[in-house]
Amino acid sequence: MFDSTIDVDAARLLADLKRLREFGAFKTGVHRPTYSEADIAARRWLRDRMVEAGLDATIDGIGNVFGRSRTPGPCLLSGSHLESQNEAGWLDGAMGVIYGLEAARSLGGGVDVVAWADEEGHYGSFLGSRSYIGELSETGLDAGRNKYDSTPLRDALRRCGLEGVPRVRFEPGRYTGYLEAHIEQADDLEARGLKLGVVTSIVGIRQFRIRFEGTQNHAGTTRMAIRRDAGVAAVRLAGAIHDTFPRVVAARSVWTIGRLAFEPGAPSIIPGAAEMIVQFRDADDAVLDRMEGTLLDLVEQARRGPCDVRCDALSRSRPSLMAEPFQDALEAACEAVAPGLHQRMPSGAGHDAQIVARVMPSGMLFVPSIGGVSHHWSENTADEDIVLGCRAFARGAKDILGQAG
Amino acid sequence: MFDSTIDVDAARLLADLKRLREFGAFKTGVHRPTYSEADIAARRWLRDRMVEAGLDATIDGIGNVFGRSRTPGPCLLSGSHLESQNEAGWLDGAMGVIYGLEAARSLGGGVDVVAWADEEGHYGSFLGSRSYIGELSETGLDAGRNKYDSTPLRDALRRCGLEGVPRVRFEPGRYTGYLEAHIEQADDLEARGLKLGVVTSIVGIRQFRIRFEGTQNHAGTTRMAIRRDAGVAAVRLAGAIHDTFPRVVAARSVWTIGRLAFEPGAPSIIPGAAEMIVQFRDADDAVLDRMEGTLLDLVEQARRGPCDVRCDALSRSRPSLMAEPFQDALEAACEAVAPGLHQRMPSGAGHDAQIVARVMPSGMLFVPSIGGVSHHWSENTADEDIVLGCRAFARGAKDILGQAG
Repeated sequence: MFDSTIDVDAARLLADLKRLREFGAFKTGVHRPTYSEADIAARRWLRDRMVEAGLDATIDGIGNVFGRSRTPGPCLLSGSHLESQNEAGWLDGAMGVIYGLEAARSLGGGVDVVAWADEEGHYGSFLGSRSYIGELSETGLDAGRNKYDSTPLRDALRRCGLEGVPRVRFEPGRYTGYLEAHIEQADDLEARGLKLGVVTSIVGIRQFRIRFEGTQNHAGTTRMAIRRDAGVAAVRLAGAIHDTFPRVVAARSVWTIGRLAFEPGAPSIIPGAAEMIVQFRDADDAVLDRMEGTLLDLVEQARRGPCDVRCDALSRSRPSLMAEPFQDALEAACEAVAPGLHQRMPSGAGHDAQIVARVMPSGMLFVPSIGGVSHHWSENTADEDIVLGCRAFARGAKDILGQAG
Repeated sequence: MFDSTIDVDAARLLADLKRLREFGAFKTGVHRPTYSEADIAARRWLRDRMVEAGLDATIDGIGNVFGRSRTPGPCLLSGSHLESQNEAGWLDGAMGVIYGLEAARSLGGGVDVVAWADEEGHYGSFLGSRSYIGELSETGLDAGRNKYDSTPLRDALRRCGLEGVPRVRFEPGRYTGYLEAHIEQADDLEARGLKLGVVTSIVGIRQFRIRFEGTQNHAGTTRMAIRRDAGVAAVRLAGAIHDTFPRVVAARSVWTIGRLAFEPGAPSIIPGAAEMIVQFRDADDAVLDRMEGTLLDLVEQARRGPCDVRCDALSRSRPSLMAEPFQDALEAACEAVAPGLHQRMPSGAGHDAQIVARVMPSGMLFVPSIGGVSHHWSENTADEDIVLGCRAFARGAKDILGQAG
């Protein structure tokens, strides 16, 4: 059996992460939106670290930072994203990037390192990894806008000096696969007293907008019998979803009505319209199909009520399976560094790995999030867990590369 | 038996109403907010008509237009409000004022006419009638603000030249009672093929704000079992209200959840808070008590769920009973002018009569609203129904005055 013994430099790993936290520091977290000054400064800093590590480093035309190994033979691509949500955590994305860099440094070759741009969606959706796999056209660049202030993506790239810079594209044949580490962003590992999670799949997400149109009227003079109250219709459907979904879902399915609003929303006016967004996630397309079928059945039943109902599918992303051999290799590495303290688990959040998995085998490793907190500046993971995770990650990377070589 | 035969001048009645429609004309309705130029012009025009009718007329310090009969003996006070909702109907309020004027002209004495200010609540709540019965203090005037642009009530009164003008107050002993006519603002008369409604009571309104506090979290990574979803809690309570209220209410009770909103209201975020306003109306305090008890029971049940629940009573207005002898007199008048085409009925909307009823016996008469529409510029009533209503109104007024005299 291939000997995957390896160790990482824990002090260097933590020092790099803490240095990265200074770019856009916000309380104990960071405020580092895509293409902000802090984000670009962090990318330039990372490029210099890649050069130090002996990689050929570049920042491409969408902001991806690429560090290319000079070793011949099949390579592993490894990394995550570098920007943050607004006023959010220091490890979300950054940790996976530095794990990749540390794996490249520890293995001494065969690992390309990447920091994707805009996984957090300030200007689009997975801009960097989609650009890399060829799913972001020039027209797509034209259309990109900052979701808070509507700045055109083209203007942001120009301001960062990235206008006209070539975009790095996937090279078929170079890679045995992609590995990404990330904080869990949930409390499942912590609740079970575990230290590491091997991701089996990244969930698919389906999202529907359901709009009820009734008749806006006086809440005092309109008899109950003749009302067409869009709010009542929406509440009835929402209740039916929460009643019915538990009977058709799988153990880790989640569903959320994050938005529900009445129009005009005044105490003495019967709502003339009501709108809700229903979102559900699962790692299995068959389960997503069952959930969607159930939702559409409930919408059909709602049509028998007094209000008009409109149901639009806003998005349907497919679950992304992580490669079985990568799961096996990561699991063996976890068992080596933390015997019995790991599990296989799906990812309920989206990650660049779901994009990259379209062009090469991919794997993901999770470390615990303290209290399950993420997308908030108080997000954190214990230093020892960060180091432990990197040990498992580098070991798994070495195993995968060894099997390929 | 007292002979209440009387007739009104139909042409004069309709001509006055159509002239009034020119003040703030908007499509086929009017836009005549309280203390707007159109409103003040309409009040001055009305004052001149009162003088022509032989009344001592004045506009008081809150904008009420008063026309005082010079005839000795007990008087009837009669009228309604003159301002409109924004871009609303031409008859809502105005019709009741001109009925009062026409009754005064037809009876030739004993009828005082009033056009109250701000029944529609642009600056407060029933400002004119509350001022009249002594329930609007100087402090209350200080606090008044326009609900759309926050203009202080004092500034609006100054701009209209009403600053420092005395406010007319109720004179105990002068009146046998108050009579008000109004459009129905609902479709009950029309649906039953009736022409006139004798109001038995004006409903009481109770209003509660219910707020759920849960835990805002990631809609992908947070397991269903540990969620504290404030939106789910709100939807469950709203559904329970709509399920349970039909079992405790009376035939004409109404209940409305006009506002329901999730915070922060994003598709991928589990709502951390949700708030709703529950309003219910009935003409019987005992029924309102049952509804409130049921609501509070359901809120208690909701407290057993994972979210914190706060329930605040925002307002409780009591049902206002119309005087039985006035109902009898109006019913006899309806039967005389429209045999079999009238009914007794509660008013689901609020009216100045509910305020004035606190100081003197009061009665109300309804005429049909075409399609039940009100608070919209397309609100209308057939001319012949307007005339018929005024005949019944004047006849009822004469009967009541005759009984008193």
